[in-house]
Amino acid sequence: MAVAELAGRHYLLEIRRLSPQLYAVCPKFDLATVYVSDAQYNRNIFFDTSPQAVRLYLLYNHWFMQTLVYAFIIVNLALALFEDPAVVPLPIWATSTIEIICLSAFSVRMVHYAKVIPKDKFWKDPKNICIIVVLSFIDLTIYGALKSTGYFAIRWSRVLRPLLLVNVTEGRQLRRAFRSIRNALPQISYVFLLFMFSVLVFSLVALKLFGKRGLLTIDGSPYFTDYLDIVFDLYVLVTTANSPDVMMPAYNYSVFFTIFFILYIIINTYTFMSFFLAVVYSNYKKHLKEEVRQLVKARRFKMCRAFSLLHEARGEGGEPVVTQTKWNHLVKLVKPNINIAHRELLWSVLDDQNKGHIGKFAFVQLADLLSIQVITVKSQPHPIQICFPSMYNSPVSRFIRYVVHQRMFVYVYDLIILVNAVFIGLDEENPVVSNAEWGFLALYMLEIILKLYATEPRAFFARHHFWNWFDTIIIVSALFGTIINSALKHSGGYTSRQILDIIFILRVLRLIRLVDSIKRFRAIINILIKIGPTILTFGQLIVVVYYIFAMVGMELFKGKVQFFEPNSTSPDQEYCGNPLLKGTTFAKLNYCKNNFNNVVSSFIVLLELTVVNQCGFTAVTHISARIFFVLFHIVVVIIIINIFVAFILEAFLVEYTIDKSDLQTSLEKKIEELELNVQQYVPFKPAIKIELNRSIEGLLLLYFSGSRTVDGLLQRMFETDIRPEDFVEEEEPENINFSNPVFDSV
Amino acid sequence: MAVAELAGRHYLLEIRRLSPQLYAVCPKFDLATVYVSDAQYNRNIFFDTSPQAVRLYLLYNHWFMQTLVYAFIIVNLALALFEDPAVVPLPIWATSTIEIICLSAFSVRMVHYAKVIPKDKFWKDPKNICIIVVLSFIDLTIYGALKSTGYFAIRWSRVLRPLLLVNVTEGRQLRRAFRSIRNALPQISYVFLLFMFSVLVFSLVALKLFGKRGLLTIDGSPYFTDYLDIVFDLYVLVTTANSPDVMMPAYNYSVFFTIFFILYIIINTYTFMSFFLAVVYSNYKKHLKEEVRQLVKARRFKMCRAFSLLHEARGEGGEPVVTQTKWNHLVKLVKPNINIAHRELLWSVLDDQNKGHIGKFAFVQLADLLSIQVITVKSQPHPIQICFPSMYNSPVSRFIRYVVHQRMFVYVYDLIILVNAVFIGLDEENPVVSNAEWGFLALYMLEIILKLYATEPRAFFARHHFWNWFDTIIIVSALFGTIINSALKHSGGYTSRQILDIIFILRVLRLIRLVDSIKRFRAIINILIKIGPTILTFGQLIVVVYYIFAMVGMELFKGKVQFFEPNSTSPDQEYCGNPLLKGTTFAKLNYCKNNFNNVVSSFIVLLELTVVNQCGFTAVTHISARIFFVLFHIVVVIIIINIFVAFILEAFLVEYTIDKSDLQTSLEKKIEELELNVQQYVPFKPAIKIELNRSIEGLLLLYFSGSRTVDGLLQRMFETDIRPEDFVEEEEPENINFSNPVFDSV
Repeated sequence: MAVAELAGRHYLLEIRRLSPQLYAVCPKFDLATVYVSDAQYNRNIFFDTSPQAVRLYLLYNHWFMQTLVYAFIIVNLALALFEDPAVVPLPIWATSTIEIICLSAFSVRMVHYAKVIPKDKFWKDPKNICIIVVLSFIDLTIYGALKSTGYFAIRWSRVLRPLLLVNVTEGRQLRRAFRSIRNALPQISYVFLLFMFSVLVFSLVALKLFGKRGLLTIDGSPYFTDYLDIVFDLYVLVTTANSPDVMMPAYNYSVFFTIFFILYIIINTYTFMSFFLAVVYSNYKKHLKEEVRQLVKARRFKMCRAFSLLHEARGEGGEPVVTQTKWNHLVKLVKPNINIAHRELLWSVLDDQNKGHIGKFAFVQLADLLSIQVITVKSQPHPIQICFPSMYNSPVSRFIRYVVHQRMFVYVYDLIILVNAVFIGLDEENPVVSNAEWGFLALYMLEIILKLYATEPRAFFARHHFWNWFDTIIIVSALFGTIINSALKHSGGYTSRQILDIIFILRVLRLIRLVDSIKRFRAIINILIKIGPTILTFGQLIVVVYYIFAMVGMELFKGKVQFFEPNSTSPDQEYCGNPLLKGTTFAKLNYCKNNFNNVVSSFIVLLELTVVNQCGFTAVTHISARIFFVLFHIVVVIIIINIFVAFILEAFLVEYTIDKSDLQTSLEKKIEELELNVQQYVPFKPAIKIELNRSIEGLLLLYFSGSRTVDGLLQRMFETDIRPEDFVEEEEPENINFSNPVFDSV
Repeated sequence: MAVAELAGRHYLLEIRRLSPQLYAVCPKFDLATVYVSDAQYNRNIFFDTSPQAVRLYLLYNHWFMQTLVYAFIIVNLALALFEDPAVVPLPIWATSTIEIICLSAFSVRMVHYAKVIPKDKFWKDPKNICIIVVLSFIDLTIYGALKSTGYFAIRWSRVLRPLLLVNVTEGRQLRRAFRSIRNALPQISYVFLLFMFSVLVFSLVALKLFGKRGLLTIDGSPYFTDYLDIVFDLYVLVTTANSPDVMMPAYNYSVFFTIFFILYIIINTYTFMSFFLAVVYSNYKKHLKEEVRQLVKARRFKMCRAFSLLHEARGEGGEPVVTQTKWNHLVKLVKPNINIAHRELLWSVLDDQNKGHIGKFAFVQLADLLSIQVITVKSQPHPIQICFPSMYNSPVSRFIRYVVHQRMFVYVYDLIILVNAVFIGLDEENPVVSNAEWGFLALYMLEIILKLYATEPRAFFARHHFWNWFDTIIIVSALFGTIINSALKHSGGYTSRQILDIIFILRVLRLIRLVDSIKRFRAIINILIKIGPTILTFGQLIVVVYYIFAMVGMELFKGKVQFFEPNSTSPDQEYCGNPLLKGTTFAKLNYCKNNFNNVVSSFIVLLELTVVNQCGFTAVTHISARIFFVLFHIVVVIIIINIFVAFILEAFLVEYTIDKSDLQTSLEKKIEELELNVQQYVPFKPAIKIELNRSIEGLLLLYFSGSRTVDGLLQRMFETDIRPEDFVEEEEPENINFSNPVFDSV
């Protein structure tokens, strides 16, 4: 805590140290910095503007504090591993103490937040967190009291824990996903009700058609005689999990009865499920567009505020402007690690008439400009060239460098990788194969060394050269692993399975490089990489939902299904320790490890339910398991997976169709005006990447690539749809009463 | 044949009979009629314009000829039921004779087509059909020769049969669907290759991780030791069919190995499958848009041609116009059953300045206007009112009519239906329940009678009152069924299961009426109804693909799996008559009827493969079954199902977002100009339905509803996207060289 506070103070001191004169001229310089920084990172906290509150606000947003909060949340969530039913059991006092520490940390964070924002705003926004924290404390007390007196007790507040992940952190994407789910709910529920109506009607038909025919299912029980059982069976058919089992008795009886099932599948499995996707997709698009519009609006508003703090009347006609000196200091403060060339370029884009000051309109664009990723690479001579110029420039050396840069060099190595793939597939205990591996490793090392010889090392390892990094790490790790493994083998004849596993995985990963050689594949991979971060957001969403269901599932089903080690001799092994499972397919297929006995296996069962609704466990505890199963299917498969598909659909369509944004084009135009030779490299249009052959100052290469953040992608998604009036700068920025979306209820 | 020719001649005679003077003035009147008719129905055959060819063309398009072709195709396809392996075996000479008749019919159709279109066009377009017909004849000859000499022979040309459905008929939608698949193929194949690369790499990792650990699957075979087996297993995991079985041995060994499967599922099952949908969707949208643009262009072109045949220079400045007399006759010929009020309305929309003649621009709109569905209902007094006016107007009668039109009346009957639903669910052998059924039937009959009393019968049974028709048919059939059933029961104590089945289904169908009472549900149902016809197109597509796979599957797998009647005592019953299946899950779950022993069971197996890829049959014939299975999955699940989802997605989004088209708005405007009180009823925007309270002539009610055809929906889908230049009328229509898309290759 002390460290973080120190860091916050340090930051403010830094502002004053860097710009003492400016600070004297414009005492609100730090406030302006905060506004610009907020606009850049899309932070939407409506903080108090008193110097005290601004200082606290800076501390609140400090990376250390944010990381600390995330750490506490992870610790709090991870408690499920140690609480009963536990993977690694810990005594109650230990887990309780850790939980109390975490809850206290969240409380401190709340107090901090209360000091940052205006008093009247506090009770409107973060009430959820307060409620969760208070409820957790109450639950903890009751549980402790009951347990110590020997009564039965349930830790029901554990269900609330993942909600902290949604509410406490500044995870915009996660909250946005939750909001878009909430907004789509009414529409989804109408379709769902109609869908359920259809299932109920079909079930009634099934009851009437099959109930009286005395058919038997495969395990000898009567077929389709109980209405609620039929409803459940037909619901499961929608998930395709029990197809064709559910149909077989009727089909064996008469082929005409398949018409019933075909109709059911067409209407419910295909049409209604597509309807769900359509409803989720259209709502997702609509609401996300609205959110991004709000985001853009808030950003403009903050930039206008920053402008109003920094401006001075100096332009023609006395309109307010910001001078270059102030602007430079602002940029230095907002993005401390920016280099001079990059900053100069940004300025020349904004101040296109070289006046030495910019107006409001240009100033507001700063936040967008800063979000464009600019990678600067100094074009320096090769270190070997400096040390041994004659050797490096000799004909042999020049020939080597020429060969390495040829397309043929890549093809040869692609061929080597293909041959290697065959060798990987062969049995590695064959001495020829294991010796060949040394040869391949040597070839790959040679490739890296040659490339490093032909390219300047700092350029080779530049941040955007993903595949260079990938190759080097994979090959060097594989080399070390292989050496360690053979050392172990030669010393004591002992081979570690774990090390071998890692070596094998590293070997196979090499093959991925092949993909990069084919342009079409690279384009798809680029989309995948860009979607990556958002898949992580969905990962968080899934974790939240899984955690809640796992907690409930563990309370309901723990210990109902037992897993016995394969070499166990227990007679219960036959039916997973539960007589109810005797003779069921669940036990026959040895699914015993699919249980809710701890949080890890719960998560795996839930994953299986997501994929194919492996619903064998419903046999154990009749009705609650069925309700649990149906609820899970509705939440995860119907809603969340569809939102995921909707996102990928939209992202794919955007990558396919949308051209570069206007802003990036203006940047490009500017660069062209600066008489720079712009070489554009737009593979499948994943990002704009401009290579400048001549730079503004010194020997400098600049690479531009489109923003890779989720927000950037979203903004690009809807940029063509956002109404132009949203981009008109606000005349009276103080009049906007923009909401505080950070702590709103989910 | 003679009948059809007669019909064609009759039609032309009709033209001359209706308009002898006009025919004298304008000898090309019939040609113009053909153009307008082609534009209206979107027929795109580039026919010869000689009177002889036009007559043949009219015959070619005659509904009787079209139906005949469809009938022959259905007969040809249905031959699979009677050919070996047959559901109902027929001797070879019988099926061969029928096939020869069908093929001759197609040949005659081709000769007819050759006479209609210009000579030079013929060999470019319908070559597919000729090839199919010739190949079928050759195959038939070879097969007959081989069979008669006792050799083994395969009827390989049966695979080609469903292609006739695509090529011979004028099924635009089907051909369009095939084209959009073909166009999307390159994009899909790139993603597919990358996907396969990913599967191969994962398989290699799996081989290295699990192959050496000596794990066993549930049936005791080694787990993940053969590379190709692993590839197949992991491919099947993408279809989710073998989850979690494929994971269990590794999971039982160590929980960490689930990470491998989780990664696999996220990347391949979810991300790549979403990518496929995205690629199919974006391509579908793009190509369909292009097709519809072509369609609109061709339609304008044909209307311009018709105009150039009919116009005369009479407008101001001598520009060409068409007079009302000519136009009236044209409309009468194109749409013989149009009533005068409707025609007058169309004219007043086109000739908005009441000049008595219209220019080219207005004329071209006729095809679009004709495609707007206009339902005319004469508002007549009730027949009872005419017969017994005093009774019908008595206070009691007026009160009854008042009550029937109340919202409360609907609610009461909704409640009755709900109560009925409970009774349906109860055991019908209980005398209370079976007697209650009579009561419910009486109540429903009363409802229909009351409604018929309160509403004029012809208005009640108007074409657009779907639910009135639905109710009446359901109730009257149920009444007859119940009476027949109880008559049978009372006479001989005999109850027919079939009649009972029908009665039960009719009873349950009644419940569907509930949906209509809730506005939100009605809206979704409306979308469903509108999508209906297109689902039929996809049905044809599925039939084509299923048929091909069924033919191949029957040749490969017939007789491999045997089904035994449940009361059979054969020892082979245990393993479906195939020792290879001994002890497999396939045999244990009694899937024996899932075989390729005849075309019906083949279709059902293919349906199961579509739903969940029940791939147990791969155990029987190792490698060919696997290839068959993977190919089927690629074609049906990855491509066709995704196109289906894409269509529903797009249709849903269109219904959600697109407002009425410009044309319909102009019609509305016109009606408003005609000082008519327009009451608009736009539920969930499914269609435009205008109720005119006052009519143009006499007591006439007009209902407009948006075009319900697939083409109309498609056009509306992309209307906002179609470039405006496509709507500019062509100055030189003769210059367009529009292609003949009817017989293009698929």
